[in-house]
Amino acid sequence: MLVLGFDPGTALTGYGLVSKDGSWLIPVNYGVIRTTAKTCFADRLVQIYREADEIIARFRPQAVAVEEVFFNNNAKTFSTVSQARGALILAAALRGIEVAEYTPLQVKQAVVGYGQAEKQQVQKMVKSILRMEDIVRPDDAADALAIAICHIHSCQGDRFR
Amino acid sequence: MLVLGFDPGTALTGYGLVSKDGSWLIPVNYGVIRTTAKTCFADRLVQIYREADEIIARFRPQAVAVEEVFFNNNAKTFSTVSQARGALILAAALRGIEVAEYTPLQVKQAVVGYGQAEKQQVQKMVKSILRMEDIVRPDDAADALAIAICHIHSCQGDRFR
Repeated sequence: MLVLGFDPGTALTGYGLVSKDGSWLIPVNYGVIRTTAKTCFADRLVQIYREADEIIARFRPQAVAVEEVFFNNNAKTFSTVSQARGALILAAALRGIEVAEYTPLQVKQAVVGYGQAEKQQVQKMVKSILRMEDIVRPDDAADALAIAICHIHSCQGDRFR
Repeated sequence: MLVLGFDPGTALTGYGLVSKDGSWLIPVNYGVIRTTAKTCFADRLVQIYREADEIIARFRPQAVAVEEVFFNNNAKTFSTVSQARGALILAAALRGIEVAEYTPLQVKQAVVGYGQAEKQQVQKMVKSILRMEDIVRPDDAADALAIAICHIHSCQGDRFR
């Protein structure tokens, strides 16, 4: 089973591909889709959509998991990040791939076992679960791997820790 | 000049095409993209995107104008409508069409001349500006025509009233 996680953002969208092989979880690929504020918003959306589509076409995951956006009292940011999230969901759904959505609380619960966990705890657990040598950078890519792990856990009601 | 206005929503997205012919504005087509809550959200986004894309491919507008979403203290609704808005912007931008965005206040200001105008006043002015026999139904289609009119006005700093 190969799952692609997305941590949506306008400037930085993290992505992370996790494969389940027996009882092991393997980090297949991860990184960020980066757009610049110098570009108009519509073109940034297009870039996010096209790069997400390329990743999906290249790796052909069975499922795409996208983190829900947390409302932080800034309606403008919430709107643009939600639109980026829409572009990611569209990229998956247009290729007929199942889309799952998880709240930050669900992701922390699945990866750390505690919904109020700090960002650093999540990153350490991602490193540990995926048996990686270093903490994944940037944060957005580590978060995307965490979202993929969360989806794999929730598919089988099990934890790999 | 042909402008396509969109009033984004998850269940109902209004669309309205307005053409400028000399000093006259003509309603070319209008209606709604309707999705049902029985369908999963990703598939609703796909439907909104595909129908918007079909309208754009059929009428080939010079510009697409989309209303900005007003935050009404419901983060969930704001998020889904923002994602629908992202799908509409993407449909236009992927076909290389210019995208403009207007706040509800700007639309009311452009159509009625008063940013705090009631919905009914906007609908009456749309009917009057486009010399239509009846108020356009549903409201979402009338709003979409208002957004297209707003874009035409703002392109030339003029008002057709």
